[in-house]
Amino acid sequence: MKRFVIAVYVENKYGVLTRVAGMFMRKGFNIDSLTVGETDNPEYSRITITLNGDDYAGEQLINQLKKLHNVKKVKCLENDNTVERELMLIKVSNSSETRSEIMDAADIYRAKVIDYTTETICIEITGEPAKINAFIDVMKPLGIVEICRTGVVALERGGNILGK
Amino acid sequence: MKRFVIAVYVENKYGVLTRVAGMFMRKGFNIDSLTVGETDNPEYSRITITLNGDDYAGEQLINQLKKLHNVKKVKCLENDNTVERELMLIKVSNSSETRSEIMDAADIYRAKVIDYTTETICIEITGEPAKINAFIDVMKPLGIVEICRTGVVALERGGNILGK
Repeated sequence: MKRFVIAVYVENKYGVLTRVAGMFMRKGFNIDSLTVGETDNPEYSRITITLNGDDYAGEQLINQLKKLHNVKKVKCLENDNTVERELMLIKVSNSSETRSEIMDAADIYRAKVIDYTTETICIEITGEPAKINAFIDVMKPLGIVEICRTGVVALERGGNILGK
Repeated sequence: MKRFVIAVYVENKYGVLTRVAGMFMRKGFNIDSLTVGETDNPEYSRITITLNGDDYAGEQLINQLKKLHNVKKVKCLENDNTVERELMLIKVSNSSETRSEIMDAADIYRAKVIDYTTETICIEITGEPAKINAFIDVMKPLGIVEICRTGVVALERGGNILGK
């Protein structure tokens, strides 16, 4: 099993996301995350997909994506030449027994407290997915109330670009 | 026109995202962003959708979402009681004329340089969508190479939760 990070440049039209998502369903690809956001050109969006699978699955996914209408460019980003980030908001219970442990962990992970009430503490954290998962593991025994994570965005290092 | 932030709690099954995206296409909703991520329970994912429209469009969207298979909970988050965040990776050209302006702006926006080569500078920035858009406007004349943004994630302040 290998981890793939795939960047897709699409025209910003109704139905593109449905076609992409529909293709995953029909083909049974087990994707880990999907993000979609506008680029600096509002006519185009960039989709980032992460998936675990063998080489055959990765190649299949890329070939299927290339066939879809409004998909302009598809590229598999190389792990060792790519920066990946994810954002998570996590809300945990606020109690006198756990508060200092929550604050210390947030500090160590360079996470930010963005809401604080007598009931709950809401923390914003960014990093590679492994860091986000590790922070969830630290928070679990302290009482997670809610989690909202974005999924992965990724850019190649240096001058390599997906192109338009 | 009003801005809606809608949180959707779904079972983590093949096809959920397709059904959600397909419904938008059929109904012609003009969504601004969509993120989907696992929760602390791997059987459930949380989708966050932002959309501009009138009250009727917002109500329609919520009612349609509630009807979909595997959708467990739908909630419209109130703007003044919600924390929203987005993450963007942005790669700009590195030249001696623009470098100090890029670095100063990154500093002011509390953004982080996460890759630096002779050709390009890659910056990670988080914040509300308006802050992200403002940073793009600052970088535009300095030479944007690539952008990858996650779309919005949102949690209600304090003890209010979407529920499971």
